[in-house]
Amino acid sequence: MKLLEERIRKDGEVLPGNVLKVDSFLNHQIDTELVSKCGEEWYEMFKDEGVTKILTIDGSGIGIACLVARHFNVPVLFAKKSGANNKVSDEFYATKVISFTHGHEYNVIAKKKFLQANDKVLIIDDFLANGSAMKALLSLCKIAGATVVGCGAAVEKVYQGGGDQIRKLGYRVESLAKISSMSDDGKIEFC
Amino acid sequence: MKLLEERIRKDGEVLPGNVLKVDSFLNHQIDTELVSKCGEEWYEMFKDEGVTKILTIDGSGIGIACLVARHFNVPVLFAKKSGANNKVSDEFYATKVISFTHGHEYNVIAKKKFLQANDKVLIIDDFLANGSAMKALLSLCKIAGATVVGCGAAVEKVYQGGGDQIRKLGYRVESLAKISSMSDDGKIEFC
Repeated sequence: MKLLEERIRKDGEVLPGNVLKVDSFLNHQIDTELVSKCGEEWYEMFKDEGVTKILTIDGSGIGIACLVARHFNVPVLFAKKSGANNKVSDEFYATKVISFTHGHEYNVIAKKKFLQANDKVLIIDDFLANGSAMKALLSLCKIAGATVVGCGAAVEKVYQGGGDQIRKLGYRVESLAKISSMSDDGKIEFC
Repeated sequence: MKLLEERIRKDGEVLPGNVLKVDSFLNHQIDTELVSKCGEEWYEMFKDEGVTKILTIDGSGIGIACLVARHFNVPVLFAKKSGANNKVSDEFYATKVISFTHGHEYNVIAKKKFLQANDKVLIIDDFLANGSAMKALLSLCKIAGATVVGCGAAVEKVYQGGGDQIRKLGYRVESLAKISSMSDDGKIEFC
């Protein structure tokens, strides 16, 4: 998506350690007009799939998912993070994740009654890098028996491999800006 | 707002300890159509105030704020929570909050460059009870010198007093469903 790539080039900041900071328009401040246009793109791709629910994860994904959901006129379900040692109530599906950034383990949970076998789910998140968050959301859908029609990330860091791993599992992954490399002097290459 | 009150009566659950659970449409699953209609209500109230930014806090407020922001066509800034002992970088405004639910202290932070003296801010959150989160957001605006045109909560638990404390400080607070009392047998009274 040209508009998003241009915005990343203009306002994205490359920090040491291969970090891309997009907090001026995606995950601290959110340019809701731009993100709603991202939603239009995904709507064009998935409008014939009978999507019943947008699934995302607690944090900056929530705003993006809500703006996307308006185009499909469906609810958003955001999975929550819970400490690995917290007891998870029977009302929830749960799956364990190891944080790529911090190294610790946590649970990702979603209430069973909101994720059911007749749901057709589009998973949306801001970033797709090593794919741990998205794999956790896929796992919740699998436990629930829900159909995943696809996954959408605003930004995919292709070289971290998570997107291709998920594609190899047979899922459709549509990222709107696919970054093939970033250099420490701030240069960003798109696929 | 009749539609929201009806939905709370229909799908809200009153739990022991005066807890109102609205996780089927407001803060785990989000009925984006309903919340977008909430945004229309606030737009009618604040459309002549020159709003430049919607401010909210990390968590379930983000989705609501984004859906509201579309009506104003402005960005959302969501303040982040950070441990009380974490060092806060000079790039951020910070204010301390004591969690009503958990009792511990934490910082609420927002990047200085996204909240400026020429901003006209509408603060939006899902719940207004004792008002600690909203007061923290007001405090960030004050430090930044930004103008607060008002505060909007989807649900105000009036009997917890936070809303009226903020009104007494001179701020306009517009809550869409104002709860005057809840009983343990699940009865909810609106103002």
